[in-house]
Amino acid sequence: MAARKTPPAPIRLGMVGGGEGAFIGAVHRWAAQLDRRYDLVAGALSATPAKARRSGQALGLAADRSYDDYAAMAAAEAARVDGIEAVAIVTPNHLHAPVAEAFIARGIHVICDKPLTASLATARRLAAAAKRRGVVFAVTHNYSAYPMVRQARQMVREGQLGAVRVVQVEYVQDWLAEPIERGGQKQAAWRTDPVQSGGGAIGDIGSHAWQLADFVVGEPVAEVAAQLSTFVAGRAVDDDVQMMLRWASGARGLLWASQVAPGHLNDLKLRVYGAKGGLEWSQRCPDQLLVTPLGEPTRILQRGTSAMKSDAARLSRLPGGHPEGYLEGFANLYGEIAEALVAARRGQPAPRGVQFPTVDDGLRGVQFIDAVQRSSKAGGRWTKVSS
Amino acid sequence: MAARKTPPAPIRLGMVGGGEGAFIGAVHRWAAQLDRRYDLVAGALSATPAKARRSGQALGLAADRSYDDYAAMAAAEAARVDGIEAVAIVTPNHLHAPVAEAFIARGIHVICDKPLTASLATARRLAAAAKRRGVVFAVTHNYSAYPMVRQARQMVREGQLGAVRVVQVEYVQDWLAEPIERGGQKQAAWRTDPVQSGGGAIGDIGSHAWQLADFVVGEPVAEVAAQLSTFVAGRAVDDDVQMMLRWASGARGLLWASQVAPGHLNDLKLRVYGAKGGLEWSQRCPDQLLVTPLGEPTRILQRGTSAMKSDAARLSRLPGGHPEGYLEGFANLYGEIAEALVAARRGQPAPRGVQFPTVDDGLRGVQFIDAVQRSSKAGGRWTKVSS
Amino acid sequence: MAARKTPPAPIRLGMVGGGEGAFIGAVHRWAAQLDRRYDLVAGALSATPAKARRSGQALGLAADRSYDDYAAMAAAEAARVDGIEAVAIVTPNHLHAPVAEAFIARGIHVICDKPLTASLATARRLAAAAKRRGVVFAVTHNYSAYPMVRQARQMVREGQLGAVRVVQVEYVQDWLAEPIERGGQKQAAWRTDPVQSGGGAIGDIGSHAWQLADFVVGEPVAEVAAQLSTFVAGRAVDDDVQMMLRWASGARGLLWASQVAPGHLNDLKLRVYGAKGGLEWSQRCPDQLLVTPLGEPTRILQRGTSAMKSDAARLSRLPGGHPEGYLEGFANLYGEIAEALVAARRGQPAPRGVQFPTVDDGLRGVQFIDAVQRSSKAGGRWTKVSS
Amino acid sequence: MAARKTPPAPIRLGMVGGGEGAFIGAVHRWAAQLDRRYDLVAGALSATPAKARRSGQALGLAADRSYDDYAAMAAAEAARVDGIEAVAIVTPNHLHAPVAEAFIARGIHVICDKPLTASLATARRLAAAAKRRGVVFAVTHNYSAYPMVRQARQMVREGQLGAVRVVQVEYVQDWLAEPIERGGQKQAAWRTDPVQSGGGAIGDIGSHAWQLADFVVGEPVAEVAAQLSTFVAGRAVDDDVQMMLRWASGARGLLWASQVAPGHLNDLKLRVYGAKGGLEWSQRCPDQLLVTPLGEPTRILQRGTSAMKSDAARLSRLPGGHPEGYLEGFANLYGEIAEALVAARRGQPAPRGVQFPTVDDGLRGVQFIDAVQRSSKAGGRWTKVSS
Repeated sequence: MAARKTPPAPIRLGMVGGGEGAFIGAVHRWAAQLDRRYDLVAGALSATPAKARRSGQALGLAADRSYDDYAAMAAAEAARVDGIEAVAIVTPNHLHAPVAEAFIARGIHVICDKPLTASLATARRLAAAAKRRGVVFAVTHNYSAYPMVRQARQMVREGQLGAVRVVQVEYVQDWLAEPIERGGQKQAAWRTDPVQSGGGAIGDIGSHAWQLADFVVGEPVAEVAAQLSTFVAGRAVDDDVQMMLRWASGARGLLWASQVAPGHLNDLKLRVYGAKGGLEWSQRCPDQLLVTPLGEPTRILQRGTSAMKSDAARLSRLPGGHPEGYLEGFANLYGEIAEALVAARRGQPAPRGVQFPTVDDGLRGVQFIDAVQRSSKAGGRWTKVSS
Repeated sequence: MAARKTPPAPIRLGMVGGGEGAFIGAVHRWAAQLDRRYDLVAGALSATPAKARRSGQALGLAADRSYDDYAAMAAAEAARVDGIEAVAIVTPNHLHAPVAEAFIARGIHVICDKPLTASLATARRLAAAAKRRGVVFAVTHNYSAYPMVRQARQMVREGQLGAVRVVQVEYVQDWLAEPIERGGQKQAAWRTDPVQSGGGAIGDIGSHAWQLADFVVGEPVAEVAAQLSTFVAGRAVDDDVQMMLRWASGARGLLWASQVAPGHLNDLKLRVYGAKGGLEWSQRCPDQLLVTPLGEPTRILQRGTSAMKSDAARLSRLPGGHPEGYLEGFANLYGEIAEALVAARRGQPAPRGVQFPTVDDGLRGVQFIDAVQRSSKAGGRWTKVSS
Repeated sequence: MAARKTPPAPIRLGMVGGGEGAFIGAVHRWAAQLDRRYDLVAGALSATPAKARRSGQALGLAADRSYDDYAAMAAAEAARVDGIEAVAIVTPNHLHAPVAEAFIARGIHVICDKPLTASLATARRLAAAAKRRGVVFAVTHNYSAYPMVRQARQMVREGQLGAVRVVQVEYVQDWLAEPIERGGQKQAAWRTDPVQSGGGAIGDIGSHAWQLADFVVGEPVAEVAAQLSTFVAGRAVDDDVQMMLRWASGARGLLWASQVAPGHLNDLKLRVYGAKGGLEWSQRCPDQLLVTPLGEPTRILQRGTSAMKSDAARLSRLPGGHPEGYLEGFANLYGEIAEALVAARRGQPAPRGVQFPTVDDGLRGVQFIDAVQRSSKAGGRWTKVSS
Repeated sequence: MAARKTPPAPIRLGMVGGGEGAFIGAVHRWAAQLDRRYDLVAGALSATPAKARRSGQALGLAADRSYDDYAAMAAAEAARVDGIEAVAIVTPNHLHAPVAEAFIARGIHVICDKPLTASLATARRLAAAAKRRGVVFAVTHNYSAYPMVRQARQMVREGQLGAVRVVQVEYVQDWLAEPIERGGQKQAAWRTDPVQSGGGAIGDIGSHAWQLADFVVGEPVAEVAAQLSTFVAGRAVDDDVQMMLRWASGARGLLWASQVAPGHLNDLKLRVYGAKGGLEWSQRCPDQLLVTPLGEPTRILQRGTSAMKSDAARLSRLPGGHPEGYLEGFANLYGEIAEALVAARRGQPAPRGVQFPTVDDGLRGVQFIDAVQRSSKAGGRWTKVSS
């Protein structure tokens, strides 16, 4: 909302999912709105008509643009002169593909929550559809838009760490340490239903951990050797994931994602070590990046200071020491996507430097999940991540 | 932006100050907008006509509601059926009073940056005016709206720390360690001009430190013994403030505010110790509150968990472990004010439990600054904070 | 050195290895001496006669008890009325067994650095010899004697975490990120010589990480799937170790040991998560243990407070807040061993509660190393740790 | 205990105070013994004969050198060929002077706990006596011998922070938050008896905080404005001390010492800010020093790395990442004193670079305490620290 010289008109945004009581839908709306680059003008916020209506009303949608059927929404919006330019999809994972395909078919751009789909075959089909139609398709791996994660990526890319040797990444929670899905907790219920989610910890948070490492290292994981565990009796999906990683360049690593580790609310942490230095970033202090040139003291790099490289500086809103958090990071991602959407109005690609996970990255994420699941089933055998 | 059942119409908001290049103006706009409870519809964003126009345009203001004169704005808006209900004042301190008075005179509510004014006499006059006219008048001591600061206040009030004995508060920065005001840095220039600011570190950040302690302790500081220092040669205001504090109840404390302490970007920290326990909050990790019952291990209380008391829970947006930061805290304050503004539409007081610093708190803040300045001039003599 | 009522006579201690320039020998001496429970009276501190002599002199050994041949030392000391009761072995790993066997054969107790030996066959032979002769045989996995590690073990054992689900352990350094062994760094030279060490990171620090987890979890690791890496070109041993772990009870874990991770001087860290709670200990703050009962705030347990359980309290020297470190922890281990040695004078077993790693634990450690090396060679296959 | 080429004979040490149940006596013994530079050969460990005897026996003193009267001890030891060269005085404060004077009179060197005495007049007398007789007289402000405190001092002295502007020092505990002295807690009893201690928090820990700042800043505090408080009803001494500080050079600061702050076991922390940089040291992580060159990221300097300056390197025992703690720091101080004592055998001054607080520093500490007490009594008036 900082003053800009020539602000383009806000992007007309629709949303599928995210009705009353949803978590990530509200997050997408905050993110879209923080910088006033989007107007939420339509939605199919729930498949339950009364709930869809109430939710739309609460968000100030015009009554005729509050739908209870995403297909109807796609058709109606495509037919309007002022129809939505992009749709944010925040449903359970198994619905991402059908919903996205309905909008892609109408030439409407897509902003899709992660993981891309609940199955690999569907992901391939969806990626092909998106590319065929040429729409902008973003997957909301929001952590890649924290300024200090961008800083980390740029430092690795510029060689300040030397050749990457070791990567340690973890995403750890404790909210599923007990079988709360049986008590009717909505967030837990669909996430632990393999049909809706396509996997447990691996899809929900493991995919974020993978993407964070993927983004910062700048080279895809080549092979995995994994063990998926289900510690809560009766749960139908994994709630803990541990694995070894290998990159083609020779880097090695470990990834841990867990939803059953008491003491961790939502701890995402990445450490990368190269021949010349190491770095550490943790969402607990997202404005901070620890960097150690080999043989020298560790530096605490802070967002909002002159230590920031171009990409971190571009996504930084506030002066250093004024903490930015999860919503700002998510809004940064929406801001990057907005650059692409505005450019798309003129038939142009996103401006140079703008970055967000695309449908291809989303597909790679599902390929990663698939490789992990296959490795675990095969007793932890080293398994190639297909590409 | 979470779905609500019956959202009241957004508050029509105007802004004075906050044009191109301003910092705190942009913050107020983000804060006002995060929850969609305000619409920024008018502004006198700069006293320079061309700049006011450009700034208004960039923010999407209608041309006829982008003013270059706050008095004209007050008159014009008061005359409109759809005129602003409240004005946010984000000018240098010495303009707070004349601007506020212009709007108060028209019955328009005021959201004013801190400190309330640059002099005590003016603060008294302004407070009297606001109360005479009966408008809602909020002062944006935003730190009091962090959820874990609310948690701290509630714990103290409920007696969980026992009688308060010692308070330690500090607000420390390093951006003025060199005379950057001479290099044309706009933020530094007005803050180090005693006419515009009314004081240096004491007004800019010392007042925040005072307010944080005041808010959490729940009892006003009675006396101060202070030393104001100017470490950068040629600077016309203090850039470091140190003082001893006394409360009528017997509590004692220290307050330090500095703008010349290398290593501190913007570190606000409060510690309160009572007969039965202690607590510590730092803006570095604003989602966290350290609490120690006497004789027991320290607990790390996290925002977004069941450890939160009612007031912290009410102002928490995201699940624990998803960091909230400065903008969310500021938006919380705007949310509290919105509750009062919506109630005022019906001639009612703010709902029970809603809290924000009022013009009286702003006046007390200026009284505190005044006492500190008098104590320092008098060689650190214990000086009563008038009330 | 605290006053005790009836202090037994100090244990007459000899040392093999640890001459001029050695690191771990000096540590053993500090540890032995801190509580005045040992007198160092004899040594074969180096195999180089002149160096052995100089080293012995510097340590105040009588000339006739400063040997340059451990076999001669064993014979001579066994023949003296005031001969050593125990020998500390601080040579490179491949010498542990022959040295220990020489002293065991004379009925002299052994305090041996880790890992027990450089090969599994040798470890088996040595363990058998020690048990046949009935000597006290301690392996100096010193980290298990930090008070807060004892606290962790006791909490797990008492069921405060519930059934253990996940274990994360790491021991990370950066001192071998470059090939300093080629520059004549003595510590690096023997540690990277497979003949002397029997392995690189896995033996040197991986074995400590394993033992820490083993000690706290209280159940042996059943299977490993590992990747050993050598990142420094030309190095003859591994300098980074990553693996997945399985326990028979169903617990799962990851272990990472590295000597090439810039930013880590010597970071040993253990995290254990059970059905009812989690804990975290790090050598960076060894006096502190983070404990989280599921659903409650994390507690910071401090050494020297009433939160300590019996075993932690027994090994705590100083009041809380007076940091104890590496030497105190090592001395605690020497103290535990002293209890056993004093009891052995009377032909009795160590007092109840006294704990230190024995030759059996040392053997298990070598079995672990062996399983890791076999798993890595077999492409990361899950491999049973023999027992 | 590291190997040295030509180790001088250990210093023959006596001790007055420190019998059964004492805390600081045991610390002195650990410190004296860690590096084998002292032999404890005589003591008057208690004024109660039976207790003195038992304590001496437990420590292995010869029966004829375990006294129950310090004057008798001074006489007897002075008469022996192998009599003590130095005495460690670890009695309550009010006995420091008479005990020290008895040994000084015999030409025996003194190692005296802090504060030097319980009154200023006594301190002056004692300092004069010590200088007249020319003995080595050390005061055990042990915190000044932590390697990273030495590092801090050297950085300030070498100008790396520029001219010092602001100093923040605090020493905070919670063990006296309740009136435990009434329950027979021995440590609490004498410390809260004004006759034995000469002051409460100000003498016990305030003097350490002062000395730490004094040592690192390298310039004496010129003036204080203080408030001493007694929060526990019925307590005869202060249990909380807060003050403003001024240095002649223009530096300003705050000092806080408290024994009633729940959550703080023993937290000593110093922060120094100059025109060119800032630093922070905390006993919680004594191996670490945070250093921020103005405008650059904060560096985490670690003990045992190449970042250490000469003085820190000289007092470092273990490689970085192997935590050293309170005892090692205390032993460092004993080591520094040993250098002076060994030199004194040859009638020479301590070697260049060796540093420890002398009787003059002890006197300055008592002058500081006296000024603080006078300022507090005078309503916080700025009061010169006499010199």
